[in-house]
Amino acid sequence: MSQGSPLKSPLRPPLVVLVRPQMGENIGASARAMLNCGLSELRLVAPRDGWPNPAAKAMAAGADAILERAQVFPSLREAVADCQQVFASSARRRDQAKPLLAPEAMAAEIGGSAALVFGPEANGLENDEIAQASHLVQVPLNPAHSSLNLAQAVLLLGYTWWRSQAGRLEQAIGPSGQEPQSLASAGEVDRFVTTLLRHLREETTFLQLEAKRVRMERNIRNIFTRHDLSHKEVQTLYGVVEALRRGGRQKD
Amino acid sequence: MSQGSPLKSPLRPPLVVLVRPQMGENIGASARAMLNCGLSELRLVAPRDGWPNPAAKAMAAGADAILERAQVFPSLREAVADCQQVFASSARRRDQAKPLLAPEAMAAEIGGSAALVFGPEANGLENDEIAQASHLVQVPLNPAHSSLNLAQAVLLLGYTWWRSQAGRLEQAIGPSGQEPQSLASAGEVDRFVTTLLRHLREETTFLQLEAKRVRMERNIRNIFTRHDLSHKEVQTLYGVVEALRRGGRQKD
Repeated sequence: MSQGSPLKSPLRPPLVVLVRPQMGENIGASARAMLNCGLSELRLVAPRDGWPNPAAKAMAAGADAILERAQVFPSLREAVADCQQVFASSARRRDQAKPLLAPEAMAAEIGGSAALVFGPEANGLENDEIAQASHLVQVPLNPAHSSLNLAQAVLLLGYTWWRSQAGRLEQAIGPSGQEPQSLASAGEVDRFVTTLLRHLREETTFLQLEAKRVRMERNIRNIFTRHDLSHKEVQTLYGVVEALRRGGRQKD
Repeated sequence: MSQGSPLKSPLRPPLVVLVRPQMGENIGASARAMLNCGLSELRLVAPRDGWPNPAAKAMAAGADAILERAQVFPSLREAVADCQQVFASSARRRDQAKPLLAPEAMAAEIGGSAALVFGPEANGLENDEIAQASHLVQVPLNPAHSSLNLAQAVLLLGYTWWRSQAGRLEQAIGPSGQEPQSLASAGEVDRFVTTLLRHLREETTFLQLEAKRVRMERNIRNIFTRHDLSHKEVQTLYGVVEALRRGGRQKD
């Protein structure tokens, strides 16, 4: 993240997050695909076989530096805490309300510090991890055979981003009206939602029904994570929540 | 070629020719990448380890039918004899006077029966083979690391072709995961925001400062109106606001 401020480098390459990757070989091949596409920052969430992993290095074929600089995190939440946009790669449609982008639309959408998130080889991301994403990305492939291995998924999203840069060099202004640097990070939004949910749990009956609570909490999280909220808007939302809580008290 | 009538698929998928492939695993992985991208006809020129090859089958993961129908030829010339266009994938610039296309340009160029030709893993195509091609295709990658393995090269060219087809037929994978009918109307969102603002004005001190009130109200409105909220999410937001208001009261 030390490389270039958003102001100086609006086209900063997205970083890649591999969540609970299983095979070291796939981590190495993913690093190689990243290098092909000009991506350099790799983050690993709880890799199954620990880290560093010799099997990853054996497959990296020149991408060793990416592996050496890779950072390991215990959870996706921590891995993307400083990212402004979180694109989760998903092989299937999810029932979570969140923009589902084709890779080209993803590339056009990338503005500030973005993360491309890939789930484990076998099962993909869990719903609670999907809920941390601002966008879902689906690579549209032959519906009869849409499964890709991990490094191939990294390659296709990375390549689409890489190709999109050629067209975007002239028009370095992001696709949305917002300055990229004014966007809230995923960590900021996460802390706000966590605070809101704690108030609801501890002070109200809203999340009382055990059976519905998990889904309701996920729905609430999705309302706030899937959109590009700015710093200021997150502060405003804190203010709104505080006011509603205290307002009620003052009244009675 | 037997699957799918020309009527349904007016742009017949290009066939894939692997010239002197070495590792069976790479043939299998290439078949799998073809299937991902709706390509079905594979031709092999003098595969090093003979044909059929069990190592190819082991890697095919569902693309067995492509391997079973694969035809073997002694030379590239014979393999592409019935093709109208021959696109040779090349990792480096050649000194042969021939159009050098990016993958997107290749996809746009494909008209009749086309072949995508890939050389052996180690050395690529020989000059005499390049001479058989009508076009050269180069995947533009990070110049510092542009080498791809065989199946990845097949995947990137295949995917670019596949996406070029999708342009008009398939916006089936739309930009949004939400059903349009589940979206809240502007009126619904407006009523929610108006309700929220009234609570804040009447019950709290949040909007007390006259000078800042108009802008703050606009900011709050923007948070909720500029995104596609669903019916259900608006209901959830009402619930959250009510719970926070009543929760505060219950406390004191």
